[in-house]
Amino acid sequence: MDLTIGVDVGGTKIAAAVVDDSGRILDEVRVPTPASDREEVEAGICAAIEQLAARHPVQAVGLAVAGYVDAARSVLRFAPNLAMSERPLRDLIGARVGLHVVVENDANAAAWGEFRFGGGRGAKDVIMITLGTGLGGGIVLDGRLIRGAFGGAGEFGHVRMVPAGRHCGCGQNGCWEQYASGTALVRQARELAAARPKDAERLLELAGGDASLLRGAMVTRAAAEGDPASRQLLAELGRWLGEGIADLADVLDPAAVVIGGGVSAAGDLLLEPARRAFLAALSAAEHRPHLQIVAAQLGNEAGVVGAADLARVP
Amino acid sequence: MDLTIGVDVGGTKIAAAVVDDSGRILDEVRVPTPASDREEVEAGICAAIEQLAARHPVQAVGLAVAGYVDAARSVLRFAPNLAMSERPLRDLIGARVGLHVVVENDANAAAWGEFRFGGGRGAKDVIMITLGTGLGGGIVLDGRLIRGAFGGAGEFGHVRMVPAGRHCGCGQNGCWEQYASGTALVRQARELAAARPKDAERLLELAGGDASLLRGAMVTRAAAEGDPASRQLLAELGRWLGEGIADLADVLDPAAVVIGGGVSAAGDLLLEPARRAFLAALSAAEHRPHLQIVAAQLGNEAGVVGAADLARVP
Amino acid sequence: MDLTIGVDVGGTKIAAAVVDDSGRILDEVRVPTPASDREEVEAGICAAIEQLAARHPVQAVGLAVAGYVDAARSVLRFAPNLAMSERPLRDLIGARVGLHVVVENDANAAAWGEFRFGGGRGAKDVIMITLGTGLGGGIVLDGRLIRGAFGGAGEFGHVRMVPAGRHCGCGQNGCWEQYASGTALVRQARELAAARPKDAERLLELAGGDASLLRGAMVTRAAAEGDPASRQLLAELGRWLGEGIADLADVLDPAAVVIGGGVSAAGDLLLEPARRAFLAALSAAEHRPHLQIVAAQLGNEAGVVGAADLARVP
Amino acid sequence: MDLTIGVDVGGTKIAAAVVDDSGRILDEVRVPTPASDREEVEAGICAAIEQLAARHPVQAVGLAVAGYVDAARSVLRFAPNLAMSERPLRDLIGARVGLHVVVENDANAAAWGEFRFGGGRGAKDVIMITLGTGLGGGIVLDGRLIRGAFGGAGEFGHVRMVPAGRHCGCGQNGCWEQYASGTALVRQARELAAARPKDAERLLELAGGDASLLRGAMVTRAAAEGDPASRQLLAELGRWLGEGIADLADVLDPAAVVIGGGVSAAGDLLLEPARRAFLAALSAAEHRPHLQIVAAQLGNEAGVVGAADLARVP
Repeated sequence: MDLTIGVDVGGTKIAAAVVDDSGRILDEVRVPTPASDREEVEAGICAAIEQLAARHPVQAVGLAVAGYVDAARSVLRFAPNLAMSERPLRDLIGARVGLHVVVENDANAAAWGEFRFGGGRGAKDVIMITLGTGLGGGIVLDGRLIRGAFGGAGEFGHVRMVPAGRHCGCGQNGCWEQYASGTALVRQARELAAARPKDAERLLELAGGDASLLRGAMVTRAAAEGDPASRQLLAELGRWLGEGIADLADVLDPAAVVIGGGVSAAGDLLLEPARRAFLAALSAAEHRPHLQIVAAQLGNEAGVVGAADLARVP
Repeated sequence: MDLTIGVDVGGTKIAAAVVDDSGRILDEVRVPTPASDREEVEAGICAAIEQLAARHPVQAVGLAVAGYVDAARSVLRFAPNLAMSERPLRDLIGARVGLHVVVENDANAAAWGEFRFGGGRGAKDVIMITLGTGLGGGIVLDGRLIRGAFGGAGEFGHVRMVPAGRHCGCGQNGCWEQYASGTALVRQARELAAARPKDAERLLELAGGDASLLRGAMVTRAAAEGDPASRQLLAELGRWLGEGIADLADVLDPAAVVIGGGVSAAGDLLLEPARRAFLAALSAAEHRPHLQIVAAQLGNEAGVVGAADLARVP
Repeated sequence: MDLTIGVDVGGTKIAAAVVDDSGRILDEVRVPTPASDREEVEAGICAAIEQLAARHPVQAVGLAVAGYVDAARSVLRFAPNLAMSERPLRDLIGARVGLHVVVENDANAAAWGEFRFGGGRGAKDVIMITLGTGLGGGIVLDGRLIRGAFGGAGEFGHVRMVPAGRHCGCGQNGCWEQYASGTALVRQARELAAARPKDAERLLELAGGDASLLRGAMVTRAAAEGDPASRQLLAELGRWLGEGIADLADVLDPAAVVIGGGVSAAGDLLLEPARRAFLAALSAAEHRPHLQIVAAQLGNEAGVVGAADLARVP
Repeated sequence: MDLTIGVDVGGTKIAAAVVDDSGRILDEVRVPTPASDREEVEAGICAAIEQLAARHPVQAVGLAVAGYVDAARSVLRFAPNLAMSERPLRDLIGARVGLHVVVENDANAAAWGEFRFGGGRGAKDVIMITLGTGLGGGIVLDGRLIRGAFGGAGEFGHVRMVPAGRHCGCGQNGCWEQYASGTALVRQARELAAARPKDAERLLELAGGDASLLRGAMVTRAAAEGDPASRQLLAELGRWLGEGIADLADVLDPAAVVIGGGVSAAGDLLLEPARRAFLAALSAAEHRPHLQIVAAQLGNEAGVVGAADLARVP
């Protein structure tokens, strides 16, 4: 049995796990991330690895980090939420823990996890879309993780969906994640509460009467209960999701698109509108086989599992 | 010296050539395509191959065809301009000429040609965009041609640039090729001639006074002479080109984008606006290395050269 | 009892009627329009007027013409469907028939007819939108017909709804009538038939199996029968209609919007989606009284009735 | 000589003036607005009127207020910046100061002032567009101020320019004022400073190195000095302005559009791009007379002068 460690380094916590070669988690530790302090983040990563390595015969480590990583899987170029840029994490962490380390973008790691052991299992050409705060993505083609020339492939969230569209924190307008993400869902819910409070009655109730406290999970919950306005909000998000997937089909033509991240908890209330919008927006739909839009299966663990497995890939 | 044959099967002619392993063309034949008659097209392909095979010791054949090809490089799924669908060309042609045959999408073949021997030489991650009647594309990542799960990768022309945008023959609206292609250029030129004939004076002169005779090459010629309206038309096309490339950068992150096809004859009058628009539209532009937008180098021969070389790839 | 003649000069026929001051039609004649021959059109207008004037003591004539009319109600500036430009119809026709004549844009005349005697009766600020081949409009504010400085007010059909949107015959892109008109409805129906023939089964049946024979009335009929795809097509048109009305509310703030023209035969299958979209798109919807979206009541006679009545207005 | 008082009630100050019937200001007072306290605002209005009325034989008062006013010029329906809603200001203020009072929307009053005595003098059909924090508007047609059925005409700022476009505080997306206003200008300048700091060098210098301190006036100043990036920002705003004016031309067909508000200080650096974009976006441009886009002439006093004059209109 071949064991590796996967570490998911996020803005609020570090999750590390020992994973076997069938994607099973054997042991796990979590430490909070002091996001504003680079050295403490690195110390936390090392501590988590060392703790697990003391308990299991591990052979390598895969770090999944929320940021741009170079194509050599070595340097974290830019991670605004971790106050890091141009950090040679592979060598720094590797030297400190005495293990082979690779660094991956977290969405890429999650995509790999779902490709190998989750919703994308069985296909060779898989895209993963992660709907969290933003919209992240990862690409596997012909069984290989696609990183691009500079490590930036799969940044779907900043594909422009609407010229002169909604402003995005990246400095552009109309980025996909302004229409399909947890943040977009919350904003739409708040707009609804402001413009048509009667329609948003159930949502406002869940938020204790204060629209500024609305969260994506409340929309999902209200939608599951049957609240029409919340279902409408999810359907609109699903529509943008499906329309963007139709664009990705023209570029990458995958066999499966796996939808993960917090918003994907809405399940078919999100995926069915996405599937319908995908089909309606697909060019030459009658003349080509169609990809499947499926739910992710590994939940929050896709990143650690994927990173651990990628540590095995030369 | 390893010789193969590349055949470019277009809507109006078949071009076939013997190509060596450095991409050099040694011999070439051309026959017109009777596009409405499938059997004659296939007979023409065979005749061209046999003619060349009789003169050179060739080992394999690559067909570049304007249509959807399956991922196994075997079946031409759908080629509206050739009146073909679901034709197993690899086996049909292979049996008739007695050579190993592979079938490739023509834009993919051209992309491979430019990657190996043209504008993309030296990079491992290359996109080619062909601006002809429509907008075609091909993708090479990590030195491998990307075909997607069903052979449809690289169909950039139908990525949606504008929701509810210009109608496209594919049944959708707002497709990229409605804004960046030879057809789009001609339509914009004709609209200009109708709406502001004084500004279009030089263009109308080149068209013999009849806006319906305007062609893309006239715009390029007038722009090269300095005609402001024609330069504006190319700059607008270049802007759409660059903005779409910014989207592809977020998906694929290539090192180079090669621009070919008839419209690319405009050179920097097209490419400079594209480069500017690309930079202005790129997300997080300050924090990542930038791809190069370069001109294609193989002209009309990219398809035969690429197809011939792909016949060597297992 | 005060009698006037209204004449509706369209591309295919001339309809003339004697109308009393309560909007009632007392007598009517119709002659086909030889649209390609200006003199015959004018002769036809005169013949129709003279025929009616011989039978009734009429005092004035109002011409409703499909074209730009100057603000003095005198000159037909430009009427592409009638092969006329810069024709002083008021004086030409007036001299030939020996009656006081005024010339009005046909959509303005219809708007006035509906304002005085139809769906807009009772309100002082009324907009009419005519969904025929294109999207025409007319404006009545504070009980007065609004013609604008040059006679071009109310040309709603060319308000841009989508930057870089669908191409319009006017030389621009994204005009409202490319999304909300009979022509738009037919195009969407044909696209549906091409892209998803199963969904368009009932529509294709009505068109005798030939999508190119699809007409707007078939969509309306299938929708009335309950066909889901046809209802969807009308709902989409209604959505664009309602969203545009929300824009007009910000500019003109009318009390009522009357929807006429052939497409309006769909009734609430069109108007209900329009009302919903209007409310969802209206800015500050909670803080202002809302206009009513109502069906036209005069049908094809709105133009003659309105023109006849406008002949009484100094 | 016929004297009236005009009062401009804004979010930060009350300006009141005695104006003669040729639009000349004879006397003026200003008091700060305690915007959060409705009673103090009303007391401030009365004090300003009484002060002027004690010095001049005035006959009536026109209030120009930043908010929705009913069509009877009586009730202030909704004024978020003044913490007022449904206030019967005509009667309340009229009773306290013992003079005839009318209430007008401030943009309408400014439009009337420019129509009578400023940039729109001489035309009968005039639109005014005020580019301040937002985009306000007023309409004069056939020499009459257009208020609409509910007093909401001329709210151009919330016409949708881009479906799914930039979010607006009104709860909608893509409103015109998100592309053409002082706020839009500042946001674009800040985005430029973030995305391409080298291009924004002069702007950042004027802002003391802190992009969050950038103001519209800095862009105008840098543009006047010749700074290319600032000229580009104004040109982009001008483009959106001109494109929206083309839409208004199709609805209202005015003879002149007067551009006022703080951003209009940029003069032709703004107006020339607006004129070009207007012409390029106008439907059927060859077949109709064109409106003029001109600069406002009354500056900040348009509101008081217009309100004073409207107090004379029955």
